[in-house]
Amino acid sequence: MPAEVLQQAASEMLDWHGCGMGVMEMSHRGKEFMAIYEQAEADLRELLAVPPHFCILFMQGGGLAENAIVPLNLVARRPAGRMDFIVTGAWSDKSQREARKYGTVHIAASAQASGYTQIPALQDWQLSADASYVHLCSNETIHGVEFHELPDLQALGCEAPLVIDFSSQVASRPVDWSRVGLAFGGAQKNIGPAGLTLVVVREDLLGHALPVCPSAFDYKLVAEHQSMYNTPPTYAIYMAGLIFQWIKRQGGVAAMEARAIARARLLYDCIDGSAFYVNRVHPSCRSRMNVPFFLRDESRNEAFLAGARAAGLLQLKGHKSVGGMRASLYNAMPIEGVQALVDYMREFERTQA
Amino acid sequence: MPAEVLQQAASEMLDWHGCGMGVMEMSHRGKEFMAIYEQAEADLRELLAVPPHFCILFMQGGGLAENAIVPLNLVARRPAGRMDFIVTGAWSDKSQREARKYGTVHIAASAQASGYTQIPALQDWQLSADASYVHLCSNETIHGVEFHELPDLQALGCEAPLVIDFSSQVASRPVDWSRVGLAFGGAQKNIGPAGLTLVVVREDLLGHALPVCPSAFDYKLVAEHQSMYNTPPTYAIYMAGLIFQWIKRQGGVAAMEARAIARARLLYDCIDGSAFYVNRVHPSCRSRMNVPFFLRDESRNEAFLAGARAAGLLQLKGHKSVGGMRASLYNAMPIEGVQALVDYMREFERTQA
Repeated sequence: MPAEVLQQAASEMLDWHGCGMGVMEMSHRGKEFMAIYEQAEADLRELLAVPPHFCILFMQGGGLAENAIVPLNLVARRPAGRMDFIVTGAWSDKSQREARKYGTVHIAASAQASGYTQIPALQDWQLSADASYVHLCSNETIHGVEFHELPDLQALGCEAPLVIDFSSQVASRPVDWSRVGLAFGGAQKNIGPAGLTLVVVREDLLGHALPVCPSAFDYKLVAEHQSMYNTPPTYAIYMAGLIFQWIKRQGGVAAMEARAIARARLLYDCIDGSAFYVNRVHPSCRSRMNVPFFLRDESRNEAFLAGARAAGLLQLKGHKSVGGMRASLYNAMPIEGVQALVDYMREFERTQA
Repeated sequence: MPAEVLQQAASEMLDWHGCGMGVMEMSHRGKEFMAIYEQAEADLRELLAVPPHFCILFMQGGGLAENAIVPLNLVARRPAGRMDFIVTGAWSDKSQREARKYGTVHIAASAQASGYTQIPALQDWQLSADASYVHLCSNETIHGVEFHELPDLQALGCEAPLVIDFSSQVASRPVDWSRVGLAFGGAQKNIGPAGLTLVVVREDLLGHALPVCPSAFDYKLVAEHQSMYNTPPTYAIYMAGLIFQWIKRQGGVAAMEARAIARARLLYDCIDGSAFYVNRVHPSCRSRMNVPFFLRDESRNEAFLAGARAAGLLQLKGHKSVGGMRASLYNAMPIEGVQALVDYMREFERTQA
């Protein structure tokens, strides 16, 4: 989190804008919190250039809950109850497994055979004629695979709406809404506070919830009540709003994207320029947000991590399902942080050579 | 929220206990947040005297989501798929309507005919022989009806576990866990932060989730992962933990109950001692937390509310489904606040007489 955002939150903790109460003390239906909510929604809409025919919902449960909430809301759009999945890593795989509770899952494309190091070519996607929607994860945090361009399903002859899990990508680059029906994401990676889920959904996709969909997670009810069908996570919305303002001050999503490109280039160049480290993801779909890499000699992993910790470089251990190392470079990471990592990596390589 | 709690949160915003990061920046699996989480859980267990064979879960979605999540987890306990409801106001009524999505709802007792001004006598409850559970709302915020003693279902010949919605009652009095199988509540009323849901569930009730239950809301999965199956609402858990510490410093739940009794007595005595105001709830089940009352001459309602606002007494308008006035007296409300209300009510009555 940017320090200036935390400082502002601390200074407003007991008295927001002179109203005599802190955000946590406000009624979620009072005029003070409504102002916070409306500003946050408007800022997010501006930052992501969300068109007017999309609703922005502030929900709870994170991306993991959305793995169920999306099919609960969308699978009944078409009578076949069929959902197409593009599996490019651990998160899209988890999503498709959860979706099986609610209908028929069809794996239209999978990169599993490659060890999730590429995105299957569009011409090889086996899209269903009658799917209720097509799901993909636009950035896979564990495998480090990112869609740098969203597929144009219509151009592929597919009329189903595209659903993207953009939990780890949101606000790091623009979204081409002409290609998207619904986007969801937990806020904790690029926006900040855990406990807030963003859902951006095209209006015509509302109103198809299954009878077993909990009311609190029925997008249509949530949209009709301005995300206040149940008590919303007010403080997390407030914090997200401060982050949206911070992103605007930094120059908006375009500035976030330029920084993300610079951070990623610095690290990938270091890896690719070395015979000591390796990243196995195809360059066309390497993630800007999460960079997994391996030491070619994995017997040195522990020494690498211990030295990194000593240098103040934390949370570099790769996910247990993949091993190796992983650097997460979300919006709030300054380029200096990546430079420090690269300097350490070069120094470690030099001393071990 | 107590000012000292907000002050502590503000002072720790950028640096929690000298660890160099704020709570919102912590990984939810890191040792710093785990310490916060474990302390919060231990303090809640101590405050509410939760026995070891009950799990404490920190979830998301509020009481409203639990209206679905409880039946999703419990209705399949017994083959009949039957749930008994005790309807004593708007919240238990809302709960039973949501539960119909997941099984057969039986209204074992209802106070609707009385306008929700009493709790039906235990001997009149028509409990099912084969219910998966019996649900009640231990405090109805809109109608101002509170269970001052939980029913002993076993003494009534009923083996089903009792489920209580204690959203607006939690931490204001002890819970008799020998009579409870599961208690749930949104944290925003008596604990503080919105976006956190407390679930306390007896271990033997885990593992009965319906196939359509979202994984993120499957109590067994949540319990097995120490509430970290999905990313938990970390900051709300931290704030709840600060409140638990504050309650302990105040003397625990016993002190909260003594204060609640004193606050409620002050206001009910004022109402009952007046020919100008009236509360129609039977004295045996009047809520300590929410006191609805009416001006006998309702044409003076607007004048009453305008004068109250001028005196700094806010949020006194009754719920639109009930009308009249309502004072909410949660844990953080000082007795001075109730005294100011009572003083205003007496003055208003005197000037209008």
